[in-house]
Amino acid sequence: MEHPPDDPKPEEHNGFLNRVAGYNPQRSWRTWLIGHPLPTAAAPHQTVSKAVGLAVFGADALSSIAYAPQETLVILAAAGTQAFGYAFPISLIITILLAIVTISYLQTIHAYPSGGGAYTVVKENLGVPAALVAAAALLTDYILLAAVTVASGVAQIVSAFPELFAFRVWLSVGLLVLIAIANLRGVKESGNTFAAPTYFFLGMTALTVAVGFIRYLSGTLGDVADPPRLESLHTGPITLFLLLRAFSNGTTALTGVEVIANGVRSFREPRTRNAAVTMIWMSTLLAVLFLGIVYLLGVIGAVPSETETVISQLARTAFGSRGVLYLGTITATTVILILATNTAFAGFPSLSAIIAEDGFMPRQLTFRGSRLVFSRGIISLAAVASLLIIVFNASVTALIPLWAVGVFLSFTLSQAGMAIHWWNNRRPADKRLTNKEMKHPYDPGWRWKLIINSLGAITTAIVTLIFAITKFTDGAWIIVILLPALVISFYRVHRHYVSLAQDLSLEHYGQPPPSKRHRVIMPVSAVHQGTLEALDYALSLSADVTVVHVSIDPAQTEKLQHNWNWWGKGVRLVVIDSPYRTFFEPFLEYVNELCAILQPNERLTIVVPQFIPKHWWHNLLHTQTAFWLRFALLNKRGVVITEVPYQVR
Amino acid sequence: MEHPPDDPKPEEHNGFLNRVAGYNPQRSWRTWLIGHPLPTAAAPHQTVSKAVGLAVFGADALSSIAYAPQETLVILAAAGTQAFGYAFPISLIITILLAIVTISYLQTIHAYPSGGGAYTVVKENLGVPAALVAAAALLTDYILLAAVTVASGVAQIVSAFPELFAFRVWLSVGLLVLIAIANLRGVKESGNTFAAPTYFFLGMTALTVAVGFIRYLSGTLGDVADPPRLESLHTGPITLFLLLRAFSNGTTALTGVEVIANGVRSFREPRTRNAAVTMIWMSTLLAVLFLGIVYLLGVIGAVPSETETVISQLARTAFGSRGVLYLGTITATTVILILATNTAFAGFPSLSAIIAEDGFMPRQLTFRGSRLVFSRGIISLAAVASLLIIVFNASVTALIPLWAVGVFLSFTLSQAGMAIHWWNNRRPADKRLTNKEMKHPYDPGWRWKLIINSLGAITTAIVTLIFAITKFTDGAWIIVILLPALVISFYRVHRHYVSLAQDLSLEHYGQPPPSKRHRVIMPVSAVHQGTLEALDYALSLSADVTVVHVSIDPAQTEKLQHNWNWWGKGVRLVVIDSPYRTFFEPFLEYVNELCAILQPNERLTIVVPQFIPKHWWHNLLHTQTAFWLRFALLNKRGVVITEVPYQVR
Repeated sequence: MEHPPDDPKPEEHNGFLNRVAGYNPQRSWRTWLIGHPLPTAAAPHQTVSKAVGLAVFGADALSSIAYAPQETLVILAAAGTQAFGYAFPISLIITILLAIVTISYLQTIHAYPSGGGAYTVVKENLGVPAALVAAAALLTDYILLAAVTVASGVAQIVSAFPELFAFRVWLSVGLLVLIAIANLRGVKESGNTFAAPTYFFLGMTALTVAVGFIRYLSGTLGDVADPPRLESLHTGPITLFLLLRAFSNGTTALTGVEVIANGVRSFREPRTRNAAVTMIWMSTLLAVLFLGIVYLLGVIGAVPSETETVISQLARTAFGSRGVLYLGTITATTVILILATNTAFAGFPSLSAIIAEDGFMPRQLTFRGSRLVFSRGIISLAAVASLLIIVFNASVTALIPLWAVGVFLSFTLSQAGMAIHWWNNRRPADKRLTNKEMKHPYDPGWRWKLIINSLGAITTAIVTLIFAITKFTDGAWIIVILLPALVISFYRVHRHYVSLAQDLSLEHYGQPPPSKRHRVIMPVSAVHQGTLEALDYALSLSADVTVVHVSIDPAQTEKLQHNWNWWGKGVRLVVIDSPYRTFFEPFLEYVNELCAILQPNERLTIVVPQFIPKHWWHNLLHTQTAFWLRFALLNKRGVVITEVPYQVR
Repeated sequence: MEHPPDDPKPEEHNGFLNRVAGYNPQRSWRTWLIGHPLPTAAAPHQTVSKAVGLAVFGADALSSIAYAPQETLVILAAAGTQAFGYAFPISLIITILLAIVTISYLQTIHAYPSGGGAYTVVKENLGVPAALVAAAALLTDYILLAAVTVASGVAQIVSAFPELFAFRVWLSVGLLVLIAIANLRGVKESGNTFAAPTYFFLGMTALTVAVGFIRYLSGTLGDVADPPRLESLHTGPITLFLLLRAFSNGTTALTGVEVIANGVRSFREPRTRNAAVTMIWMSTLLAVLFLGIVYLLGVIGAVPSETETVISQLARTAFGSRGVLYLGTITATTVILILATNTAFAGFPSLSAIIAEDGFMPRQLTFRGSRLVFSRGIISLAAVASLLIIVFNASVTALIPLWAVGVFLSFTLSQAGMAIHWWNNRRPADKRLTNKEMKHPYDPGWRWKLIINSLGAITTAIVTLIFAITKFTDGAWIIVILLPALVISFYRVHRHYVSLAQDLSLEHYGQPPPSKRHRVIMPVSAVHQGTLEALDYALSLSADVTVVHVSIDPAQTEKLQHNWNWWGKGVRLVVIDSPYRTFFEPFLEYVNELCAILQPNERLTIVVPQFIPKHWWHNLLHTQTAFWLRFALLNKRGVVITEVPYQVR
């Protein structure tokens, strides 16, 4: 007997009844907000060209042009405007750092053509504990990436429309919510969404820098007209510590560089080559624009401020007014920052799903929502990032110190993992391949590659340390405490799942003989139709039924006893006097006494008549006995609580 | 076989097993906060002398001296300081009103020696609908009494310590919480608590007035030094409407006058006489002090203000400085206001318990807490009053318009009820007494008494109207909407209880034959010890067990089917494919299909294996299937949900 595969009628399959749910999702506010549910079979896969890949995976890194120069200047401002001269030399060092990190990641692209996220690389080469440290760093990074980029995007908007300054926190939270909704719908990382804004941004930024330089060389580029007030009133000396702090802030320009290496799998074949070429292009563009902007900012005497970004100051000075080109630059910068936020929304949920799959985070995070996205991860990210924005008052400068220490820690671990990877591949292949050696194919260039990744690891480790030390009191201490706490909680979650699996395991499980006696007790306060229905149910479970009445009002008790003689079907009634007018304590005491004398294979079921009113608000007019009873007896072994609902017609 | 009465062992009683709970309340933060639970037998009763009765039942009325003059002046201030001259004439009219209301209530004392609260009097003479209107008015009054007196008390503190002004809202809420805790402990309305502060207040106020008059007559009483700024900047003309509004505010002096009539039962014998004498004393003191203060305020040119009360201005002018006597007056005024708050905490919970007893409010309000007080009423009152204080920013002037309209409405209804009472008693007794006439004994003086109470009813009705009209836009409209809404909700609650009682009634209840078949279904996601324990339980309920698996992940389903062959004891397994990866919708669809073909006396039980973790936070790591299932199936007739808990060792 055969049915067509989509027939909803039951069919025999492997000897079991098998059916397909005929459930058809209904339209509701939920489908309106996040779209109609998608069946599991609809999961897509597509690849991108180099040009689109630059837009999709480069948006995060390129967007750092929007905040890294500003955050460098903010620190230098503490020593007065004359310290701004140090910004360009610092930027040169950062560009060298960018080159080292880029070359290191180019090797990751070749070694991990299916995507070399830090968690994967570190787990494979340095083991699980280090991978969990990287995971903790990456998760906090994603959260801070979302908070910083949205706050920075809003700072651009506020620069153009100063009257919105008072609403920047709620603008940021609103934007985060919109991005979260878009991701709950399932934003495809497709060219349509990313290509146009990213290239618009690149074009506008390049135009700003180009016009700036032309006017600078022709001598027509003046200072910023009407610059914002310098906020730092305290003018200290220029110390090495100050310069290192400025350098730390500037290194945020490197955030997002690793994204292309994570996404190799999405490139068109030959994918490793295409990804590598894209990465070189991206780093070059980033370096040129970053250096150009920092240089011009020094020329025009831009002033870092919460009310107007330096990008805004540069654009209106270069273009000579707040005209169309100015607004184009600000719009492009805002949009790219929001696209960068989306990197967090793509990365956080899928990383937490991978960690949850390994049993280190709640399993629910692996569940794909109605639109096939990891909805719980998306919502968690939006919630935590919103909280950060509210707490830090949407200030990019306040959020930055928390951020980059985690980014560079994950860089360091990832590069160290790569170095170990090459070390493992140092032996030439021979005929007697063991299983372990199969995993580590010989690479003739292992020496050079080891050196490059080691250099990457050491440089980023130094930056991590500089960042942690110079930013410690500004907020980096939060991360220094948070990361170990996260790693510990990963382990506690893991221990729970492992010990649960052992406890529930059927290995060595001598199934106990089925229970023989079934004792039923049922609390009653009065005799009515609901009580009798529950009594009927109780008698269907067992012949050993005891009805228990906790006496608070003697008159009510007497009435109950009278009625029980008539309606109680001869079932045993126990009356417990409660001198303190409480129901739970005497009843629980009775249950505990019974449990103490329960035999090994005897069961105790508590049947609670539960009245279900017509309107939900009627519940306020009744005591929710069963609910509290279940709560109180949660940890009693062998006790089952059954609510027998009684619905009023 | 006899046991001593306090023996906790079971004993036969009326043929039922009877036992006394051995439960001994434990020390916890709760007992630390509100005291050790009291057994039901501990309920006390005591009577008070005239002097103590004046303190206990007069505190509320006497405390109105602290705000009524100020609130009269606040309104007049709208027409500039020259309008303050009208304050004294208005006070004279209010004093006449006080005399009428006092004489009216003296009659209530004689007619209802067991306590003539407005709800009782109106219910007996005007019927339930009018009584519910009175009840709604009284409940809102108590809430506003609590809010106004606490806010006024804090206004006195703030007058003496102006730096506390910014914290007045939280000071008020904090005081309310303290008073609520004291009442949850069970404050005895005893002389100890009330007598000393009330007489201290009377003494200090009398001293202030006396010193003021002596210095006035000797010509040494000057104007207020450094008075607060007059807040009303808009100076309008002196209109009749303005004078009526000022009069309305001044009538708050009458609030609390009825309290003695409610509490006749607590007086020593001859209780009606003692209560009547106390009432006359109280009204006389109130009238003299009220008139004296208003007169002196005019003399010294006091200015009503949110930052310093007029009482404070009078005290420091009369005593010439902010010295010990000044602080004594402020302290006494603050303390009496807090005692007046306590009147609300005594009245609200017991009135709601009476209304709940009649079935018009949730039954839970009749339940006496561990300290024998109506704890839920106390907590509700504190919560709503706190909310009002926060919303109205602890401003007495903002709260007053909401208040007195309810007070005078309950006065009116109560006096009208008394008038009907005398009308019913108009016929001389004759030998052929019917049941109805027994309740209305002939009163030879009925004509005079009828006239007095009618005069009281008409006067207070006029005041109610004046208040509602002149204060409508200031906030009285809230009450005009709130009272009918409350009365409607009383009726809806009542209808629910009545229809529920009918639905549950055993009259005409042809008990249905006991259920014959019992169908059990059990959802499973995987086979483990918890599943097998639940299966064992399910099989103990019925032989007709179906296990249902909603398939989201094909690999998991295949493993389950394999394991079920081995461990499933041959129980039928139904697999439902869920293309949208949801569990609930397909499972509920299956349950609904089964329900549709359920026979009349067939039962359906859903057994849900429920994992109970060692630590509560572990629940975050699991899906709470049973909880959501119960929620979804709440209204399904004949379906019982049983959680079989599985505790990890």
